[in-house]
Amino acid sequence: MAKTVFKIDLNKKPEQQTIKTHNRWHPDLPMVEMFKPGDEFRVECYDWTGGQIGNNDSANDVRDVDLTKVHYLSGPFGVEGAEPGDLMVVDILDIGPIEGSEWGFNGLFDKQNGGGFLTEHYPEAVKSCWDFHGIYTTSRHVPRVRYPGLIHPGLIGCLPDHKLMAEANRREAALVATDPQRVPPLAALPYADTALMGQMTGAMRDKAAAEGWRTVPPREHGGNCDIKNLSRGSRCYFPVYVKGGGLSMGDIHFSQGDGEITFCGAIEMAGWIDIGVGLIKGGMAKYGVINPIFKPSPIDPHFDDYLIFEGISVDEHTGEQYYLDAHVAYRRACLNAIEYLKKFGYSGEQAYTILGTAPVEGRIAGIVDIPNVCATVAIPTKIFDFDINPNSTGPTRQVSGVDVARAS
Amino acid sequence: MAKTVFKIDLNKKPEQQTIKTHNRWHPDLPMVEMFKPGDEFRVECYDWTGGQIGNNDSANDVRDVDLTKVHYLSGPFGVEGAEPGDLMVVDILDIGPIEGSEWGFNGLFDKQNGGGFLTEHYPEAVKSCWDFHGIYTTSRHVPRVRYPGLIHPGLIGCLPDHKLMAEANRREAALVATDPQRVPPLAALPYADTALMGQMTGAMRDKAAAEGWRTVPPREHGGNCDIKNLSRGSRCYFPVYVKGGGLSMGDIHFSQGDGEITFCGAIEMAGWIDIGVGLIKGGMAKYGVINPIFKPSPIDPHFDDYLIFEGISVDEHTGEQYYLDAHVAYRRACLNAIEYLKKFGYSGEQAYTILGTAPVEGRIAGIVDIPNVCATVAIPTKIFDFDINPNSTGPTRQVSGVDVARAS
Amino acid sequence: MAKTVFKIDLNKKPEQQTIKTHNRWHPDLPMVEMFKPGDEFRVECYDWTGGQIGNNDSANDVRDVDLTKVHYLSGPFGVEGAEPGDLMVVDILDIGPIEGSEWGFNGLFDKQNGGGFLTEHYPEAVKSCWDFHGIYTTSRHVPRVRYPGLIHPGLIGCLPDHKLMAEANRREAALVATDPQRVPPLAALPYADTALMGQMTGAMRDKAAAEGWRTVPPREHGGNCDIKNLSRGSRCYFPVYVKGGGLSMGDIHFSQGDGEITFCGAIEMAGWIDIGVGLIKGGMAKYGVINPIFKPSPIDPHFDDYLIFEGISVDEHTGEQYYLDAHVAYRRACLNAIEYLKKFGYSGEQAYTILGTAPVEGRIAGIVDIPNVCATVAIPTKIFDFDINPNSTGPTRQVSGVDVARAS
Amino acid sequence: MAKTVFKIDLNKKPEQQTIKTHNRWHPDLPMVEMFKPGDEFRVECYDWTGGQIGNNDSANDVRDVDLTKVHYLSGPFGVEGAEPGDLMVVDILDIGPIEGSEWGFNGLFDKQNGGGFLTEHYPEAVKSCWDFHGIYTTSRHVPRVRYPGLIHPGLIGCLPDHKLMAEANRREAALVATDPQRVPPLAALPYADTALMGQMTGAMRDKAAAEGWRTVPPREHGGNCDIKNLSRGSRCYFPVYVKGGGLSMGDIHFSQGDGEITFCGAIEMAGWIDIGVGLIKGGMAKYGVINPIFKPSPIDPHFDDYLIFEGISVDEHTGEQYYLDAHVAYRRACLNAIEYLKKFGYSGEQAYTILGTAPVEGRIAGIVDIPNVCATVAIPTKIFDFDINPNSTGPTRQVSGVDVARAS
Repeated sequence: MAKTVFKIDLNKKPEQQTIKTHNRWHPDLPMVEMFKPGDEFRVECYDWTGGQIGNNDSANDVRDVDLTKVHYLSGPFGVEGAEPGDLMVVDILDIGPIEGSEWGFNGLFDKQNGGGFLTEHYPEAVKSCWDFHGIYTTSRHVPRVRYPGLIHPGLIGCLPDHKLMAEANRREAALVATDPQRVPPLAALPYADTALMGQMTGAMRDKAAAEGWRTVPPREHGGNCDIKNLSRGSRCYFPVYVKGGGLSMGDIHFSQGDGEITFCGAIEMAGWIDIGVGLIKGGMAKYGVINPIFKPSPIDPHFDDYLIFEGISVDEHTGEQYYLDAHVAYRRACLNAIEYLKKFGYSGEQAYTILGTAPVEGRIAGIVDIPNVCATVAIPTKIFDFDINPNSTGPTRQVSGVDVARAS
Repeated sequence: MAKTVFKIDLNKKPEQQTIKTHNRWHPDLPMVEMFKPGDEFRVECYDWTGGQIGNNDSANDVRDVDLTKVHYLSGPFGVEGAEPGDLMVVDILDIGPIEGSEWGFNGLFDKQNGGGFLTEHYPEAVKSCWDFHGIYTTSRHVPRVRYPGLIHPGLIGCLPDHKLMAEANRREAALVATDPQRVPPLAALPYADTALMGQMTGAMRDKAAAEGWRTVPPREHGGNCDIKNLSRGSRCYFPVYVKGGGLSMGDIHFSQGDGEITFCGAIEMAGWIDIGVGLIKGGMAKYGVINPIFKPSPIDPHFDDYLIFEGISVDEHTGEQYYLDAHVAYRRACLNAIEYLKKFGYSGEQAYTILGTAPVEGRIAGIVDIPNVCATVAIPTKIFDFDINPNSTGPTRQVSGVDVARAS
Repeated sequence: MAKTVFKIDLNKKPEQQTIKTHNRWHPDLPMVEMFKPGDEFRVECYDWTGGQIGNNDSANDVRDVDLTKVHYLSGPFGVEGAEPGDLMVVDILDIGPIEGSEWGFNGLFDKQNGGGFLTEHYPEAVKSCWDFHGIYTTSRHVPRVRYPGLIHPGLIGCLPDHKLMAEANRREAALVATDPQRVPPLAALPYADTALMGQMTGAMRDKAAAEGWRTVPPREHGGNCDIKNLSRGSRCYFPVYVKGGGLSMGDIHFSQGDGEITFCGAIEMAGWIDIGVGLIKGGMAKYGVINPIFKPSPIDPHFDDYLIFEGISVDEHTGEQYYLDAHVAYRRACLNAIEYLKKFGYSGEQAYTILGTAPVEGRIAGIVDIPNVCATVAIPTKIFDFDINPNSTGPTRQVSGVDVARAS
Repeated sequence: MAKTVFKIDLNKKPEQQTIKTHNRWHPDLPMVEMFKPGDEFRVECYDWTGGQIGNNDSANDVRDVDLTKVHYLSGPFGVEGAEPGDLMVVDILDIGPIEGSEWGFNGLFDKQNGGGFLTEHYPEAVKSCWDFHGIYTTSRHVPRVRYPGLIHPGLIGCLPDHKLMAEANRREAALVATDPQRVPPLAALPYADTALMGQMTGAMRDKAAAEGWRTVPPREHGGNCDIKNLSRGSRCYFPVYVKGGGLSMGDIHFSQGDGEITFCGAIEMAGWIDIGVGLIKGGMAKYGVINPIFKPSPIDPHFDDYLIFEGISVDEHTGEQYYLDAHVAYRRACLNAIEYLKKFGYSGEQAYTILGTAPVEGRIAGIVDIPNVCATVAIPTKIFDFDINPNSTGPTRQVSGVDVARAS
């Protein structure tokens, strides 16, 4: 087994760990450890909320979660010889749950605290808990589905440099400035109060906490991409911006659908990641790379049978026509899938949860046929233990009596 | 072989055919022929431009194409017993080129005449011609790639009823009204001058031509979805709005990437489609279906090795931050892929063409992490006859001396 | 479309065709046509019996078939520059049925005339007829299954030279000599009476007819390999033994399971094959190739769900233990699968037919664990329109009232 | 994590463990623990030699291995309510290496001590050691290949009853009696001296040791099937012969090719298996099941590109023609693949090792075309870090300087 170079004690809060995680991105975060190309090591990670959510039947914790205190990242780790302009080759060799913590959760955030993709339709906080059975997961809150894990870090990347940090801070502030009172805000700007800055101390730490990136969005360096196929067995190439690179990671998902539409989000879990590192010197220029690129895993779950739903960019409430808006089209495709699943007895929240947690494929089918985008969402039929395909007699009720956990 | 119920003579213009195609959608189009559930039949179709584009080395025809005279659809075909609210079950049994016309084309439209997904970057008309070799295609204009066909109709669906037609006309007109002088316009509104209305005649025809839907966008009934996986071997369920259903189809693609980003668009071809029909009575309400749903084919080309590019919703020119804009994110992912492929010697237009024509997967990875969407585009590495994976020595020039056809 | 260089008129007997097929392999068969590397062409082929079997509901024709008059091969075709020791690169670009003949058949031979893998269990002649629906096939004799075609030539290869011909004749004669009275014989030795020798005439023809290989077995050159994955889209590398190579082919199958256990055998059909040719000069020595090698097609039907049956090398009648006998183990696996399918109402012959015609996977699991081989046969569950997986309540009868065609 | 109900201390010999394994099958082995349907538990297992082989560069241990002291099985475990005639539903939920022992080995046995599939060609003992890197493995003895694990128990099944035990003992003794002096023997008959009988003691133990099945071959109950696709994520249905069932398992493989042709055999490892159990009452009769059946895992490594080698049933030394002998045909296919790989610089033993350890597919292509079977072996090309496909210039030497470990 690869040596564990970052330990998480799940009984302690992030502030209490021996080696501290960081929940902001900053160029000056000191490396936790340096490695040579070819090295392999194990990194333990919190679930994305740092332990705020419990394995129980109330969604109060999801409703009340503090979203400024999330994404406690393990790292940064350096690679000897890495310099700005290189590509860090990162093998995600394997991922698993922390021993004794073989469960995960999914939540729909309250519209007033985070919201989500379909928050206009499902504005209240709900939660589902998922048990892991080896490579599979099931939930007492969402019956009659079982998924093989497509286990991946929602969040991984190298440290930005000062220039990139400043540029993203600029553009995000400009966006927020267009509607500063909006709830939720248009972007998550730097916020020192709840920053945890790894091994930084003193004035340097305070300065970094005040300017460091929030971890919410993906950016040029990768970060919170939530790409379900960045899974165990994949190989990634991350742009290097600072000497050593500084690879950090966290927010492990046992399974997720394309789009991570429930926002909280996938099946969220604490766990470990086995990493191998290498370098392509000067790789950014050699290959014209700005954002990370990657190659998928040979053991991603494979399905041959899907039921696929289409959506177009027309608002479901107003009937308003949007112009080539893939966001609206994907929302309509997801809503169509939810209505379909409800015919088998699932609540809307259960169906929404399935789309957020199962390995569904969200595709941009056509994006040039003005004014409609056509987006599709494909559900693998085999995750259900009954047949969801259409037939001439119509659907029968398969699910009843249980539902997602709600807030009190 | 299924009986051919709709013949196209490629030597004749659409207006000259014995049984006329239609390039508008209208509820009152008379059925060409009625079938029973369980019947199978063959339908011949024009390429989407109705023969405006030639198999040659000039892009003048692409530059000058008349985009109001496209999508000559074969149909409509009725199913006995089909009534509004039913689902028409449509098996796309097989698809092939018209004998003697085993080729297709792809084009980038001129920014002044149609444009496309990346028209700001590639504003001039270009063309590539593709030869079919059984299940494969290659192009003299884009060397060193060979794709297995993922052959599908870009456009298929049942006739809308008057209510749905009026509603979409309303919303699209409202969108155009927000910027009526825009070039290109925000939507393609009804336009009688170039309408071909199938077997309709007289005043009824003229009225229908004036109000019938243009065929450009996908809508609730399906239509121009450009879903690459609606391929031969797939089974589709189309909402029925009028008595008999009225299934029409056209715009056959030999191969296409998700998004059909080049707009003209896939590898466009004339061909035939073998269709089988069935019914689910009352299926729309039974299954809560608004838009078509479908099941993919067991013989879609399968690949195990992809190189995947990420993009986020930040404008590439201005650095402006967009809010959860999947369109911008997918554009950035595509641009990243193009820059990568250029390192092997492809021109930008060639690389753009590959993304439009190869079976690339365009996915919405994360759509809730404010303010950035993360979109990905996955290129199957095996379509190239050289290795495109990153390595430590960097890319070598593999392509030179040939390029796409340009306008004179 | 590739030019058709070999035409078959299905209304004529093999002896009456303009360009004659050959049903023996011989080095001196004259080339029908020469091609250059890079050329593509279409070849029409008889079904393997040359039209002896009808699309009807009697198995009399299967019972009475003349097995010395089969495998009417189209060819041989030469490649300019091909010399002994080269590899001929053969792209199987596409395959389809002869227009107007969109059907195929499967049969179990009578034990007295051909027999088959399970002839001790199913000794009587039966037949099933299969209709083609685009990429799919169904049978009125075997209900509730539908397969996507895995269409391939059962028989393809280059001409042997005199040395190889003599060597195989020697070894096969030696085998027959060990039990010369056996019915059926241990091998099919040269037999001039029913030989059709392509374009050969006169004394040369008579000599060749008397010494030419029968086409029954596969040999070093390829020949009757019955490899289901040598399908449209595959690329093959055939050893070249004579100047020009001399590629011939025939015995097209719409679909077949590993082992072609019914002997007659797959879903047998007349059809056309589109071929592309190339050369690797000196390839046999360069790559150490004795038998053909090949690469499978990207559009072979893919399934994710199988039910898999095991078998071991113990005789089912006597309980005798065989020593590492994969033949017996595979037979037991197939018999186990048949008994399982019978629980759903299929007759034994129907179940046997499914194993012979569906894309089942026959694998050698373990071949070193003395004294038992473990072989497996994997049935894709999706070919059935009902669920064949085991459950706690047990199987229910799904099939009744129809059966395979039998002899009168 | 499932509770570990069977612990292995790798620092102790099998005879020294607290809960003892068993290396014979016998109906009277007492259950280690009873479970209810729906329970899940973890079982630790020795490597198949019980620790005889070291992670070093000498094959002496492989040469000198005591093959009567192998297959130390963990179990038997009972399921409440299981009775003869039931099917025990066994979910193989996950498998991994024992912590601190993340390596495995492959060996070719000496012809005088075990031999193997190609022992006539490779008669001397050799060894390769394989390191695990998360889901991947590589070897210092076989460079330039890396496989994703297809991790599975080589050996799993329920206890036989007395009747089945006696019957197999009878038939295997009868086989040995046909050539009693043969080295190696034709079968491994009961042998009390080296028997380890789990928790049995006293006279009962001695009787059972003298009559219990050796574990070498697969039999009706499953046992040493060496089916590579009985992998983590698969679901198996085992016949129950004794009250409680008595499920035992061991002989874990990190990866293996079809046939396990090297005999020692796969990449052999010590590890743990997470198991879930259920019952189908009366399932053997309901479904006509004699041997186990199973469904494969959704996370088996998937490959789209293979190079496939054919073989026919003609002896490579004598040129003798065998009659429908799949064993000979598969041997020829494997030898053909080895000769091909040697052209890239691999030693014969390295190439042989690759076929035994990589997820190669061994298929029975055609088994009815007298007198030749055609068997194929398919190698996934992606396991190599160079291109093994044929091209016009021929292969180049990619491997040199290292080889498998040999005996001194």
